[in-house]
Amino acid sequence: MSHYQKLVQHAQKIANFNHLAAISGWDQAAVMPNGGNEARSKAMAELSVLIHQLNTEPQLSDWFHEAEQESLSPIEKSSLREMKQRWQQATILPKDLVEAKSLAGSKCEHAWRTQRKQNDWNGYAQNWQEVVNLSQQEAQIRADSLGTTPYDAMLALYEPGTSSQSLDVVFENVKTWLPNLVDRVIEKQDKESVIYPKGTFARSQQKALGLKAMQFLQFDFNHGRLDESVHPFCGGVPTDVRITTRYDENDLMQSLMGTIHETGHARYEQGLPTSLAGLPVGEARSMGIHESQSLFFEMQLGRSPEFINHLSAMARAEFQAEDQPAFSADNFRKLYTRVEKGFIRVDADELTYPAHVILRYEIERDLMNGNISYKDVPELWDQKMQSYLGLSTKDNYQNGCMQDIHWTDGAFGYFPSYTLGAMYAAQFMASMRKQVNVSEVIQSGDLSLIFAWLDENIWKKASQFSTDELVKQATGETLNAEHFKAHLKARYL
Amino acid sequence: MSHYQKLVQHAQKIANFNHLAAISGWDQAAVMPNGGNEARSKAMAELSVLIHQLNTEPQLSDWFHEAEQESLSPIEKSSLREMKQRWQQATILPKDLVEAKSLAGSKCEHAWRTQRKQNDWNGYAQNWQEVVNLSQQEAQIRADSLGTTPYDAMLALYEPGTSSQSLDVVFENVKTWLPNLVDRVIEKQDKESVIYPKGTFARSQQKALGLKAMQFLQFDFNHGRLDESVHPFCGGVPTDVRITTRYDENDLMQSLMGTIHETGHARYEQGLPTSLAGLPVGEARSMGIHESQSLFFEMQLGRSPEFINHLSAMARAEFQAEDQPAFSADNFRKLYTRVEKGFIRVDADELTYPAHVILRYEIERDLMNGNISYKDVPELWDQKMQSYLGLSTKDNYQNGCMQDIHWTDGAFGYFPSYTLGAMYAAQFMASMRKQVNVSEVIQSGDLSLIFAWLDENIWKKASQFSTDELVKQATGETLNAEHFKAHLKARYL
Repeated sequence: MSHYQKLVQHAQKIANFNHLAAISGWDQAAVMPNGGNEARSKAMAELSVLIHQLNTEPQLSDWFHEAEQESLSPIEKSSLREMKQRWQQATILPKDLVEAKSLAGSKCEHAWRTQRKQNDWNGYAQNWQEVVNLSQQEAQIRADSLGTTPYDAMLALYEPGTSSQSLDVVFENVKTWLPNLVDRVIEKQDKESVIYPKGTFARSQQKALGLKAMQFLQFDFNHGRLDESVHPFCGGVPTDVRITTRYDENDLMQSLMGTIHETGHARYEQGLPTSLAGLPVGEARSMGIHESQSLFFEMQLGRSPEFINHLSAMARAEFQAEDQPAFSADNFRKLYTRVEKGFIRVDADELTYPAHVILRYEIERDLMNGNISYKDVPELWDQKMQSYLGLSTKDNYQNGCMQDIHWTDGAFGYFPSYTLGAMYAAQFMASMRKQVNVSEVIQSGDLSLIFAWLDENIWKKASQFSTDELVKQATGETLNAEHFKAHLKARYL
Repeated sequence: MSHYQKLVQHAQKIANFNHLAAISGWDQAAVMPNGGNEARSKAMAELSVLIHQLNTEPQLSDWFHEAEQESLSPIEKSSLREMKQRWQQATILPKDLVEAKSLAGSKCEHAWRTQRKQNDWNGYAQNWQEVVNLSQQEAQIRADSLGTTPYDAMLALYEPGTSSQSLDVVFENVKTWLPNLVDRVIEKQDKESVIYPKGTFARSQQKALGLKAMQFLQFDFNHGRLDESVHPFCGGVPTDVRITTRYDENDLMQSLMGTIHETGHARYEQGLPTSLAGLPVGEARSMGIHESQSLFFEMQLGRSPEFINHLSAMARAEFQAEDQPAFSADNFRKLYTRVEKGFIRVDADELTYPAHVILRYEIERDLMNGNISYKDVPELWDQKMQSYLGLSTKDNYQNGCMQDIHWTDGAFGYFPSYTLGAMYAAQFMASMRKQVNVSEVIQSGDLSLIFAWLDENIWKKASQFSTDELVKQATGETLNAEHFKAHLKARYL
């Protein structure tokens, strides 16, 4: 057996354990009774240790060295590249640092759940200081190995191949037009009237409606499920994708669009090539590309006027609301494109969302590169919120720098993926429109041509190419934020 | 760290992986979409291999040897005994034999699913011959190590400490009175009229009723769930017990009593001592004792007139059937104690069930001990069915020796547990009645005193004592089938 083959077998073994981790994680979030949590957490930690051991087995170093001398096909070369990258990311940190960060992160996150409610920055900062410190150490070690800045080395965990140099260019550009655009749109929308659907919308009916939307989006129910959890997510494995949503019986709109968002993640997973199953090269390209699919479904498809026509019809039928103005397509469209400045990222609309991300990006970049201290964060947050959205978060930590879970356990480098996803989605749509009459296709009710494009250009390719190469093959160019800008202007002005 | 402590840590590690196997298994049976099966089966097989490796690690031999020299408390001694027994059972078979049996068993079971429907004994026998052959080899190896007969060595996998010598005595005794008792009861019941509830009983309502019964039986919903699966079972882990049932919308009675049965299994698991969690000594004593708890709930409690009063009231309320004679307590009692001779074990009632088990016991005992050939089984089955229940299964393999899944993959030695469970349940009830006014307690609607007795005498003790010792401590004597006989006569005559 070649060393490449040995690596393949090893990767498939790891994939089997990752499968069990994904299903146990879904179970914990979606169906597990509370009393099961302690034993489950122990069992899942045991599995994590095992997976880490497998990812860092000593003989892998030799195997990679040998495999690189072997004669491989192009796809095998890509596969080797992806396996090696994962291995390097897993092995590069000293065990002590991994453990210390995990411990500090758990402690900080756990306390944060209470501290956030109490707006307790000082208490939080005491724990968070250590998380930042250990994350900086991690970033430095990764940077030394990759030959990048510390922040770029963290970014590479989520967006391999993307640098802060390129993000700086893109985000600086966005900053030149976004605040003004937000103001103009809000001014315009102030003159419009929207009607919020009132009433109690039973969970069972909301679920039925969500399932109809998923069917419309050709979710494969033979390879997946819809369930409920406090924080919606897309989990499971490509052959069995588990998406979740949450229902608010007073708010029909949110869970419906949330379900459409997760369906985008799910179809990417379901569309990954089975021939590469169990291999890193067969997995989703990056967090940004994953988000591009969920946002393609939610923003490019889901909020298009043609799609909203269908959604409004489905909702009218489910809730027997044929004559209610709140359920009209026009009102649905207004509701789903309503722009408001707010403090909270997860509640933000399509237009203001990038401001939340750019703010975080700039802070975490400077923090990891050692240019600012953890102590500077609240003030910087306040300044940037004032500058980008005209809101002050002075002394309002819970709705400022303490609002997200990501930093509590040191996941620095993740935030850019959200806005990269939105930009890629707009760029994909612009390219798709050259080959597919998207409006007509959506109107027809059979979206197969749209999914065929995504399948061909994104899903099937998995991680065979770098993000830049994937985007170039699909759209003829690497990331170009102009498509996103054009999309926003067309939709909101 | 002492060697005993090392063994404890190792056992807890195995328990963590067993936890994940249990949850993934539940998921596969209860919620997984069909398309997820292939990847799931692979992942679970990978986990099985890992668990087997852990159970048979080479250093364990030394650790057990050393630990036996260490100074241990009584509970630690029991714990060591249980760990060693599991280790011996896992290590004694040559790897080739384990793999060959697993392969032959999978093949035979898979083909059986079709062959049974086609009544194809010859096709089945071709595969089954190998399963029997390999099981006989397994039994011989285990017997040589334990110093027992081959069959007793297989029995020890499910009922450690129980011998066929004692089973022979008990079952021979049952055979002297059971056939006659069955005939008398059927004759008596022939004169009674029963009404089968007619209508469509919505799954959601049946589930609500089942949940009410579980609440009544003090199932801990903070540590467990009720779901659906094709074959009802009790799975999960003690901190998170997953029971399942199936609903037939034309038949109200079956799923309700099935849920009560699984609730008995579940409360045993939920009642196991948390101080011994993760250790073999903290697990359920045996299959027979486990079944004694499910049958205590189903037969001793669930079919008692006092309990049926509650059940009938719950069902009347759920289905708004206050005035329907079919829902009266008296009719419910008749329905739940109806006796009929039938071919199929899983459909059998409390009274005829032991006949089905004794028949299987006698055949599998003689088969494992090499006294009969696999070819003899259909004829023996027919003879024994005629003798015990007056039914012929000549040429009717699908309702005869091909009806159960157990033998298809070589699970010889399992069947006695069912009837041992029924007997232990009756014996526990007889003892409980000396301390608790069971009828009054059930009537009161608060069954706490009953559960306190079970908790004290069975659940909390887990595997600290041998089955004989456990039963003796609880009832003052080892297995005594007279209690079962007395119970049946009191209920049915």
